[in-house]
Amino acid sequence: MQDQTQIFGLRAIIEAINANKTIDKVFLQKGLKGELFSELETLLNRNAINKSYVPVEKLNRLTTKNHQGAVAQISPIAFHNMEELIANVMESGKTPLFLLLDQLSDVRNFGAIIRTAECTGVDGIIIQKKGGAPVNGDTIKTSAGAVFKIPICKVDHIKDAVFYMQASGIKVVAATEKTQYILYDVSFKEPCAIIMGSEARGINPSTLKVVDAKAKLPLMGDIESLNVSVACGVFLYEVLRQRL
Amino acid sequence: MQDQTQIFGLRAIIEAINANKTIDKVFLQKGLKGELFSELETLLNRNAINKSYVPVEKLNRLTTKNHQGAVAQISPIAFHNMEELIANVMESGKTPLFLLLDQLSDVRNFGAIIRTAECTGVDGIIIQKKGGAPVNGDTIKTSAGAVFKIPICKVDHIKDAVFYMQASGIKVVAATEKTQYILYDVSFKEPCAIIMGSEARGINPSTLKVVDAKAKLPLMGDIESLNVSVACGVFLYEVLRQRL
Repeated sequence: MQDQTQIFGLRAIIEAINANKTIDKVFLQKGLKGELFSELETLLNRNAINKSYVPVEKLNRLTTKNHQGAVAQISPIAFHNMEELIANVMESGKTPLFLLLDQLSDVRNFGAIIRTAECTGVDGIIIQKKGGAPVNGDTIKTSAGAVFKIPICKVDHIKDAVFYMQASGIKVVAATEKTQYILYDVSFKEPCAIIMGSEARGINPSTLKVVDAKAKLPLMGDIESLNVSVACGVFLYEVLRQRL
Repeated sequence: MQDQTQIFGLRAIIEAINANKTIDKVFLQKGLKGELFSELETLLNRNAINKSYVPVEKLNRLTTKNHQGAVAQISPIAFHNMEELIANVMESGKTPLFLLLDQLSDVRNFGAIIRTAECTGVDGIIIQKKGGAPVNGDTIKTSAGAVFKIPICKVDHIKDAVFYMQASGIKVVAATEKTQYILYDVSFKEPCAIIMGSEARGINPSTLKVVDAKAKLPLMGDIESLNVSVACGVFLYEVLRQRL
């Protein structure tokens, strides 16, 4: 099982960012100062890379090497460019199906969703640069290797991805309880994208305002929601059923 | 979060079994002999209760009390009698929907499935006494509490449950790749039960021989199967869709 690799040292991480290496997250030593450290912080902010300030002991556990107060985790996959991916899929002649994940936090849910997406012919998964589960060893394992078979794109904000999809002629459907329409009321025969929200907060309210349609799963019992990877599976298979 | 409680000591466990306490599993000290120990072993076999022979160190980790070489885990829920449950559901006038799980081993999958079953109005879940994931603290958590809201029955063999369902006028559908029919080819409008197999081995081949119908999910990619809790969700929602 391929796991995340690490880069450590201030200059090394700066160079990796400038070389467009796919960095998942950077751990920085709490309270550290200095010119190079500030340069790295600026670069991380500018590129919207996840960072976390931790005690030096945490960094020492991550690596036994001379880390200079910074350890970066490199993603095991290369992310795709969303604009290019959409263009390629639109040109291919098939009816596009995209999946947008709004800051899903559990790696096992994330992995199971990637697996289901591969099984249902999803053309690409769009995640946000910050705030979501990383693509790490657990994700790869739960995805049954599907992370290597389906394009994944990172965007600054899911909402911008929604606007871009809409401008490209793709109907964006939100999976949310906040609607009177159930899944089976919505047509998925045209080019479309489905947004799934995070486990704790669902879809960001400002994103929910701009989608083309909302749909919920009918619930017959007392429990108020499904596991997000199960719900996502039901949505994607409904698309497949309608298109078969 | 309610967790499993324990009983320890040979006589205490024997009394608990005789008092029909719901025992999930008994850990026995490897190599132990004695009349009372043999009596307990006989009782465990007769009642088809899961047992596991472990080193004394494992028992000492389970409890600091004087365990005498035996620790039993009590289930946090009371199991229902399948025959009574089926009779009650048939009498209620609704179209029954049951779910049979053939030795599913992962507690998180088990919990997610219980949650989905509650959300889709499943009338009861049937599991096998031996070989499956227990109802423990993790199951309760992943089920979002649904274990307390849906009847669960334990049977000696899933295959016997299939025969009993069929004799009661319930159509039994197996979720399996070993068929040319896809989910959407099958009618779920009549009384029915769905069997899901274990993560590693699927449904027992001898059980598969006696079901009324088999159905698979269409797979559009390279990955050969879905996570079982996702697959189960897609099956249960297809039943709901057809019945709506």
